[in-house]
Parts: sequence; C-alpha cells; structure tokens
Amino acid sequence: MKVKRAVVLLSGGLDSTTCLALATRREGYEAHCLSFAYGQRHENEVEQARAVARAFGAASHRVVRLNLEEIGGSALTDRSIDVPKDRDESAIGEGVPVTYVPARNTVFLSVAMGLAEVLDAEAIYLGVNALDYSGYPDCRPAFVEAFQRLAEVATAAGLAGRAPRIVAPLLHLGKADIIRLGSSLGVDYGITHSCYDPTPEGLACGHCDACQLRRRGFAEAGVPDPTRYAER
Amino acid sequence: MKVKRAVVLLSGGLDSTTCLALATRREGYEAHCLSFAYGQRHENEVEQARAVARAFGAASHRVVRLNLEEIGGSALTDRSIDVPKDRDESAIGEGVPVTYVPARNTVFLSVAMGLAEVLDAEAIYLGVNALDYSGYPDCRPAFVEAFQRLAEVATAAGLAGRAPRIVAPLLHLGKADIIRLGSSLGVDYGITHSCYDPTPEGLACGHCDACQLRRRGFAEAGVPDPTRYAER
Repeated sequence: MKVKRAVVLLSGGLDSTTCLALATRREGYEAHCLSFAYGQRHENEVEQARAVARAFGAASHRVVRLNLEEIGGSALTDRSIDVPKDRDESAIGEGVPVTYVPARNTVFLSVAMGLAEVLDAEAIYLGVNALDYSGYPDCRPAFVEAFQRLAEVATAAGLAGRAPRIVAPLLHLGKADIIRLGSSLGVDYGITHSCYDPTPEGLACGHCDACQLRRRGFAEAGVPDPTRYAER
Repeated sequence: MKVKRAVVLLSGGLDSTTCLALATRREGYEAHCLSFAYGQRHENEVEQARAVARAFGAASHRVVRLNLEEIGGSALTDRSIDVPKDRDESAIGEGVPVTYVPARNTVFLSVAMGLAEVLDAEAIYLGVNALDYSGYPDCRPAFVEAFQRLAEVATAAGLAGRAPRIVAPLLHLGKADIIRLGSSLGVDYGITHSCYDPTPEGLACGHCDACQLRRRGFAEAGVPDPTRYAER
C-alpha cells in the first residue's frame, strides 16, 4: 500500500502541534514537518519545534531560513515595534494586530506546496484557528479556499490533478476546543509554546496576546496549564 | 501628489530587467526591487540584480535569503541534478523541465505581497513570459489570475480593497518581442544575465535552455547580443 504523506507546518506551538497529532495519530499520515526561522523574536521556537517533531515520530523535519525582517512591518520581526502586553480581552482579535506578519501564512504555504510536490504529499496541514481569524487576514476560511484554488494551477502536481489538499482542521475551533482535542490524542502541551516575547531562557511572558489566549484556553478546557511562565 | 509605488521582482535577467524598465520608464512608478538568494547555482545573479536596480534608479532593493535547497527537486537548487545542455529547440518548453523550482514564483510573489503591504505599493511586477509557460506551471495566465484572487483575501491591504495588482506585462510576449520592447526603453542588456549554469567568472555557458532562448531572441529581434559567453 502506498504510504500517505502530509506536510505539516510546525511552529511547535499549541495549534500546529495539535495539527501534527491529528495528521499522525488520527489520520495515519507519514508526517513531514516544515518550520521557518524568519527573523522572529522567538527563534527558540525552532528548537521547540524539533522536539515536537521527534515526539510525534515525524518522518522528516525541515527548517527553512528566510529573513522576513528585511520586509518588516511586524512586532514579531521588527525590534522597533513593541509586543503589546496585558491587552483587554475584548481588544484581542479586534483589527489587525502589530504582531501580524504581512503575508506570512501565504509564504509558509507556498514553500509547503513546493515540498508537497517534491514528496508527492497529498495534504498540507496548517494550524490556523477561529481565535486568530478576526485579526489576521490569512487565518480566515476565504484565505484557505483561495490558496487551495491557487494550488490547483501553481505546480506540476496541481496541473496533473494532484494538488495537495490544504487542511486547516482547527479553523472553526476555539482555544479550549483545540486543547480538549489534542488532549484526547495524548498531546503533552508541556513541550509546546505560544509566547510572542519569551525570556532568554524560553519562559513564557504570560502577558502577550498569545499567552493570554493560551491561559484562558486551558482554564476553559479544564486542563491543567503546563506552561512555564516567567512570573505567576 | 501621492507617489505611485511598485514592487518589482528582479532576478537581474532579461525579463525582469525589462519589467523594471516598464515600471519606471513607461509607467512612472517608484520601484522597490526584491531579489532572492534561494540556493540557486547562479548566486552571482544577486550581484547582477544589484547593478540593474542601481542602473534604473530603484528607490530600494531588498535581497531575501531563503534556503530552497532544503526542499530540493530542481536542477537549479540541487547539485545532484544536471542542468540540461544543447537540447533540441523543440524540446525546450515541452513538459516540466528539471530547472523548474517547485512553487518558486508563488513563494516570490508571496514575499512581494508582504512587502507591497508594508510599502503601500499598488502593483507587483513579475517577468513571467510566454516562452516559459508551456513548461513551468507558475508562468501561465491561470497562475497569475489565481494569485491575484489570493491577494484580495490574504493581507490587510487586500481586505481593505487595496490588494496590489499583479502585473505580468511579458506574459504573452516571446523573447524577441521582449528584447525589442526593452531596447525601445533604452535597456542595456549587457548588464543582464540569463544562464542557468554560468562559469565561476560569471560568463554564460551558451548551451542551457536559457542561453539558447536568449541567443535566438536577440537573433530574431535583430538586436546585437551583448552577452559574454564562455565559448562561441
């Protein structure tokens, strides 16, 4: 039987780790993980992604280096823009946040599409979710659908009718739903990270939007939060 | 009056240089050039792109580094695959050549889209053309149209109705037409290069598909070929 392959975009965060769990443990894919070092503040996320890929027995893990700081325009890649802290919950998800990296998911999916073609993979997993999509243009269903249509004409595989499916299984889930789903698949969220602005030792700040959403997600899911915060 | 900005994808080759000439000399755009160092054999093309950007008075020139050799699958990024030489003319443009880099134009346009958003640029120039599109999936009109639709939903600018126009002015032109057009705009093709496999000194091999198409283009256009070939 032909092995079913999937490319999994893996940051090592809560969402992409849950995607990897779905691809491997629920769908039975041979997973080929793809991470990016793109000038983000939290470069240690690449090391954490390696640990996650190992934990799930990924068949391969590639790290593509890309200096998106050359483009700028985001607090995640431009050190002159501060990461917002302790924002009111109602403000999170409103408008486009400064942590938005212009065209990031399009760039990531494009490289994943190239890799899928080389590996003859039938799916690309992308961990975008409902909590993000009000603020990030490239985390919405319309974006995923437009990229799917692009994939059908952009590569040799697409022209041959073998475009990879863009799978975004968390698209309509909230953080607590994602945590419950991953926990049911045995994900140890202690090896994942979410913080936009960790300490040099890799501890989560506890105050950026990502930390706030993550903390609330564990509380709502009724799952103990294994995150190591810099302060409690 | 608000300055009109365009992002120009610039390899420093014949096609992208003609695009830069069109954007600046015919359309009056303030040009922001974007080049990639993506593990291609001909890394010296980045230096040549710098010279071209300077020659046309570009407002900026960014070089994004991206290790696409991590993905592989192309003779341009994988040194274990040979660049074909002296192929029969009828074979050039048939099927998908080994010099095709999976998803390359999608990756380049994605980063250009991010830059266009940061700069509030209204257009992105891409030098794909008719001679390429029978063999390269991402050099066809359907690809350009699908990317345009993606741009309308993928970025904050797109959602605000200010998606950049993807301009591919050479799409339906042959090499000789492009050379005539550029010559009419005063392009000195002596500073451009096309070869897939140049010598360490930067001389064109004269035998790869790109060299053959270029040579024939100058002959057909009746324009002297200023290319420095390794052998004649």
